Amino acid sequence: MRTVGIRRDGGGVQVAALSDDGASVTVVAGLEDFWTDAAGHLSREPGGETLAAADVEFVPPVLPGARVVCIGLNYLKHVAEGSFAGQEIPPYPTLFARWTASLTVDGAEVPVPAEEDGLDWEGEVVAYVGSTLVDATPEDALAAVVGYSTFNDLTSRRAQKLTSQWILGKNGDRSGPLGPLVPAAEVGDLREGLRVQTRVNGETVQDGRTDEMVYTVGDTLSLISRTFTLRPGDLLATGTPSGVGYARTPPWLLQPGDVVEVEVDHLGVLRNTVVGNSARGEAARGVR
Amino acid sequence: MRTVGIRRDGGGVQVAALSDDGASVTVVAGLEDFWTDAAGHLSREPGGETLAAADVEFVPPVLPGARVVCIGLNYLKHVAEGSFAGQEIPPYPTLFARWTASLTVDGAEVPVPAEEDGLDWEGEVVAYVGSTLVDATPEDALAAVVGYSTFNDLTSRRAQKLTSQWILGKNGDRSGPLGPLVPAAEVGDLREGLRVQTRVNGETVQDGRTDEMVYTVGDTLSLISRTFTLRPGDLLATGTPSGVGYARTPPWLLQPGDVVEVEVDHLGVLRNTVVGNSARGEAARGVR
Repeated sequence: MRTVGIRRDGGGVQVAALSDDGASVTVVAGLEDFWTDAAGHLSREPGGETLAAADVEFVPPVLPGARVVCIGLNYLKHVAEGSFAGQEIPPYPTLFARWTASLTVDGAEVPVPAEEDGLDWEGEVVAYVGSTLVDATPEDALAAVVGYSTFNDLTSRRAQKLTSQWILGKNGDRSGPLGPLVPAAEVGDLREGLRVQTRVNGETVQDGRTDEMVYTVGDTLSLISRTFTLRPGDLLATGTPSGVGYARTPPWLLQPGDVVEVEVDHLGVLRNTVVGNSARGEAARGVR
Repeated sequence: MRTVGIRRDGGGVQVAALSDDGASVTVVAGLEDFWTDAAGHLSREPGGETLAAADVEFVPPVLPGARVVCIGLNYLKHVAEGSFAGQEIPPYPTLFARWTASLTVDGAEVPVPAEEDGLDWEGEVVAYVGSTLVDATPEDALAAVVGYSTFNDLTSRRAQKLTSQWILGKNGDRSGPLGPLVPAAEVGDLREGLRVQTRVNGETVQDGRTDEMVYTVGDTLSLISRTFTLRPGDLLATGTPSGVGYARTPPWLLQPGDVVEVEVDHLGVLRNTVVGNSARGEAARGVR
């Protein structure tokens, strides 16, 4: 089952199940209600209204106040290719932050900010936390994961590297496309190795496996929970394999008109088109 | 006028004006409605119901999806005292992220996570963005600021310094107490120098002035707006003066039972008590 967020006529966000052909959605629950018992909702057949996909707006099935915790440098070959090459593997997962305001969905157009030479791709897998975690063990933390999605951590490299802290370049408008949520039971354990591929205009640029990760989902959520309490609906983006654009010779960044896809076993294909900076102003003025 | 968030009987958050004696609040608007025209709401006398402060729960007047962008290393003497001493002043503001889930209010109890030796204080000023900013000039960005609050960027130093990225240690439970919002017109320009003091159990530990800032509010919001679109309700925490605890010899961190206060000219006093890690589990279980 693929679970998405929808909005009708500017109303509140609802969570819905997407049909196999993508032509219709069946309402599961309101967004806040869904996250009060995500595991329960995902274990039942959706009981709400069925609507044509063309009649709804797709949005991430994510609470506005959710935290999107991201792991940097989690695939050894990605550590080796970038500006951290030659340094020791960090003894802890390198965690950075996205705000939910940067998230978008499959099919969305992603703008390149004016001062960037392009956007870099980072195909990866996101895990959704389904229950509250305080000082949790890795086993309890992993058991709290209710689902996974494809994710593209599209990065403004110039802004990311202005200072020691990365978050400016990690929160560009619509720079975090998120695929539908697939229940954890249908995905299995990332340690068994799901293939993660990124393609630009059809050419494969990243091709890794989730069993290459240095820090597992359970270990990382456990670590986080010892500083702050994870809540239902929080997300963990698990990091990207090698093959990003800025580390290439010459560098390769996404330009307006490019189509970028992230495909992960069991999670499907996430496809987005890159557009120019003028789309930012148009969105702010409500033109698009 | 001091503007706060309130909740009654578990309902939605409303924005309200706090009376001079703090004994009552007068409702201004619902939270989302308030941020659709914050400048307008702040320019009028509040027209809603008046309630006893004892009958409401105080919460930050902040949208769950707002971004709390924080400037590190923004006062020269603070740069010089910490682990970045000896390095060049960064040529851009060092921006890190808080999620709104870490925010709390005056009077709240702030827990020390189990693996920390204590919490460090960082008294500062927060600016609230009142309108949409895309590729804004510094002048337009500053003009969009509708108010300011006191803020204590209470930090889990161990977690902050586990890796190159700071966000884990900057998002502890209830680690971001925020004072009432005071309209920008009553505060004036931070470049004129508001005094920022932090006290621990009555002893002054930080005493700086906002005219020491390297990066101004206008310049920083302008920079941010060139990568992501700032929205009404987003926050900018402007950094802390020198005098933090971890940089002292010997280090001095807040322990359960300590009372920490941040006082800023025109913005008042923000007072919080530190408690032990067990409060985290109790909060998650709904005991407190």
